[in-house]
Amino acid sequence: MGNQIKWAERSSRLEASAIRNKLFDEPDILTFAAGKPESSAFPYMELVDVAKEVLEHKGQSALQYSSTDGIYELRKLIAEDRMKAWGVNTDPEHLMMLSGSQEGIEMSGKIFVDPGSKVIVENPSYLGAYTALRIYNPHWLTVGMDEHGMKMDELEDILQKNDDVRMIYTVPDFQNPTGVVMSVERRKQLAQLAAKYGVIVVEDRPYGDLCYDGDPYPAVKSFDEEGWVVTLGSFSKIFCPGFRLAWICAEPEILQKFNMAKQGSNLQVSTFDENLAIEWMKRYSLADRIKKLCDLYRSRRDTIVRCMEQYFPEEIAFNRPEGGFFTWLTLREDMDAREIANEAAMKLRVACIPGTPFYAYNDIHNNIRLNFSFINEETIEEGIRRLGTLLHEKYGC
Amino acid sequence: MGNQIKWAERSSRLEASAIRNKLFDEPDILTFAAGKPESSAFPYMELVDVAKEVLEHKGQSALQYSSTDGIYELRKLIAEDRMKAWGVNTDPEHLMMLSGSQEGIEMSGKIFVDPGSKVIVENPSYLGAYTALRIYNPHWLTVGMDEHGMKMDELEDILQKNDDVRMIYTVPDFQNPTGVVMSVERRKQLAQLAAKYGVIVVEDRPYGDLCYDGDPYPAVKSFDEEGWVVTLGSFSKIFCPGFRLAWICAEPEILQKFNMAKQGSNLQVSTFDENLAIEWMKRYSLADRIKKLCDLYRSRRDTIVRCMEQYFPEEIAFNRPEGGFFTWLTLREDMDAREIANEAAMKLRVACIPGTPFYAYNDIHNNIRLNFSFINEETIEEGIRRLGTLLHEKYGC
Repeated sequence: MGNQIKWAERSSRLEASAIRNKLFDEPDILTFAAGKPESSAFPYMELVDVAKEVLEHKGQSALQYSSTDGIYELRKLIAEDRMKAWGVNTDPEHLMMLSGSQEGIEMSGKIFVDPGSKVIVENPSYLGAYTALRIYNPHWLTVGMDEHGMKMDELEDILQKNDDVRMIYTVPDFQNPTGVVMSVERRKQLAQLAAKYGVIVVEDRPYGDLCYDGDPYPAVKSFDEEGWVVTLGSFSKIFCPGFRLAWICAEPEILQKFNMAKQGSNLQVSTFDENLAIEWMKRYSLADRIKKLCDLYRSRRDTIVRCMEQYFPEEIAFNRPEGGFFTWLTLREDMDAREIANEAAMKLRVACIPGTPFYAYNDIHNNIRLNFSFINEETIEEGIRRLGTLLHEKYGC
Repeated sequence: MGNQIKWAERSSRLEASAIRNKLFDEPDILTFAAGKPESSAFPYMELVDVAKEVLEHKGQSALQYSSTDGIYELRKLIAEDRMKAWGVNTDPEHLMMLSGSQEGIEMSGKIFVDPGSKVIVENPSYLGAYTALRIYNPHWLTVGMDEHGMKMDELEDILQKNDDVRMIYTVPDFQNPTGVVMSVERRKQLAQLAAKYGVIVVEDRPYGDLCYDGDPYPAVKSFDEEGWVVTLGSFSKIFCPGFRLAWICAEPEILQKFNMAKQGSNLQVSTFDENLAIEWMKRYSLADRIKKLCDLYRSRRDTIVRCMEQYFPEEIAFNRPEGGFFTWLTLREDMDAREIANEAAMKLRVACIPGTPFYAYNDIHNNIRLNFSFINEETIEEGIRRLGTLLHEKYGC
C-alpha cells in the first residue's frame, strides 16, 4: 500500500498469546501445556436427546435473538445451583450471561480501567487477564502469594499507599498458573479490604467446583456485604468450553454497565447453547457431573504428584494442588525455564509452559506450569519421567 | 456504600439501546419495531439430525475449545459459498469468525479509533454501530445519502478536508435503517477513495443476500485492490441469529489485530455452533435457503409498500426497498416522530421506531423506521391501516 494504516494507539498493546507454540500441536508431543478439560468427559451422548428436545419444542425461540442479560431460566438455574453451592444467596437479577469468563475480565477493564489506573493482581496471575486488560493500559501492582493465596498484609499495604486503585483481580481457587487456593480467612479479609478502600474485586472462579480434597471453598462474594465483589463463573470447566457460556454475579448498578458493554460488543451469548444448558440441567445433575470430574482429575493429580516425587530432583519445589488443572514448579533461581521448556519440546517431545508470562512484569524466569487435566495417567508418567531426566541433567545429578 | 465506585471515563459513554421499549414486548402489540428474521423460517427440524451427527461423530472436539480464527472448514465454506457470491475471491486465511458482526464493529473501534479520531458514517446509520464505537470516543463525520446510497462527492470533500480519518463505516446493502442500497458505481468509487486517502472501510453486510429484485450487489470488497476494505458477513439473517456466527474478511495484517482482540475478549465463537453450521452447509444449500427467504420477505415487502400507498397520506415519503428488513418514512419537517411513535404504541398498539437515534448527532426527528421481516402480511395490513389513521390525523386530512 502507498498509504499506511492508521491504528489506534491501544492496538500496539494487543498481543498474541505468549504460550502458543506450533510445535505443541504436533501429534507425537506429550503435552502438559494445555489449559483444557478432558474431552472424553463431555456429555455429548446426553446432549443428542437434549438438542432434539430443544429444537423440536423450542426451535423457533432457541435459534432467534434473545436478551443481552441471557435467558432468565438459565440465570435462575445458575443462582439456585452454582451460586448457592458457592455460599452466595442471589437471584437472576444479579446475574448476566457472558461469552466465557474471559469476556468478564475484558469488560471489567472497559468499565473500570482508565489509562494508568492501578490494577492489583496476584504475582503470578492468569495470563489471559493480562491479554484482556493490557489494551486499557493499567498500571499493574502485584501482590505476592504463599500457600494460602494472596498475602493480605501486603495487599493492605498497597491499598494504603496507592490511590486510584480501580480493581483487584484474583483467581482464588486453584489458581491458574500456580494451583494455589486462597484460605477462607483471607477471602473474608479480601472482601473487607475491598469495602474499606472502595475497590472492586474481580473474582474469577473457573475452577471453584473442581476441588479434589474436601468441599469447595466459599466464594469471596459470599463475604461481600457492600457489593464490591464481581464474581465470574463458567460452564467451561464443569460442562463444555465449546459453548462459551459463563456468567457474572454483581450488584445491579455494576451489571447494568456490563449489559451495555455486552450489547455494544456482541449483543448476547448463543441462544441455542443457553437452551442446551437449560435442558441439560433440567434432566441431569451438575453436582453429579462435578463429582465425576473430580474423581477423574483427582486421580490425575495424584499421579502427577507421585511422578514428580519419583522422577524430579529433590531441589525442585512443586505443590500438590487441592483442585483445578495445574501444578507449578519452582526451579533454582539462576535457571531459565524458557530454555528448559524449549529443550523439553524439541528433544524430548514434552510440552510445558515456562512461568515468565504469568508475571505482570515478565521478570521471574524459574517456574514451569504443568497441566494435568488434558493428559491421561500413562502419558503423565511417561512425560514426567522424560522431564525428570532433563531436569536431573540441569541440576547436575 | 460509603465509598463510591470509580468507573473508567469511557464507561460514561456506555449507553442502553435507544430503541428498547418495554411496551413493545406486550402481547397485543403489532410490531414494526423489530430487527429480527422470521422465526418460523429457521431450519430447526433439519438441525435435529445435524446436531445428532455432530454430537455422535465429533462430540469431543465439537464441545472443546478451538481456535480464535474459527474452524478452518467453516471458513473455507464461507469463502467458497458466500464470499464468491459477493464477487470476492478469497480463502480461509483472509477470514476469521466473529460472535456476530456487531463484534466486528466494536473491534474495529478498538483497533482503529483513538479518542477524537474521525469516523465517517452514513447519515442516518446503524444504531448498533454508534453503541459499539462511542466508547472509543470518535469524532463523527456524516455523509448524506440519496437513493443510490452514500454520496461520493460529499465523501471525497470530507476526506480532502480532514486528516486523521480512521474509518468509514457503511451498510451498503438495504441499509438499516433506510433500506437504501449503494449503487455498483459508488461501491467502486468508495473502494478507490479508501485507497487514495488511506482510510479503512468497514463494510457491514448482514442483508447483502436478501435482495428481492434481481441479483445481489457485489461487495465493496470486490473492488478493493489494495486491502483497505474490511467486510463483515453474518449467518444471523440468512441462517440463525441465535448461533452468533459472523465473519470478517480482511488482509492478514488487519486480521491479526482482530485475532488478538478476540483472544483477549472472549477467545472464540461457540465451537458447537460452528460445527452445526459446517454440517448443515454440507447437507443443505445456503443459496436455496436464501432464495426461499427472499420469496418470503419479498412478499412482505410488497405488502407493506402496497399498504403504505393505500393508507398513508400522500405527503409522506417512503421507499420501496430492493431488499433487507426495513423501509423508512420521511414525515413533514416540523413533525416529531418520537411523539407519533409513542402515540401509536399507546393508543393504537402499533410499535415502530422513530429515526432520531440513527442520526449521529440525534438532530433529525421526522423519520420512522418500519420493519417488515418479523411481521406477517395480515398484521402488516392491520398495522399500517392503524398507523395511517394516526398519520392522516397529524396531517389534518
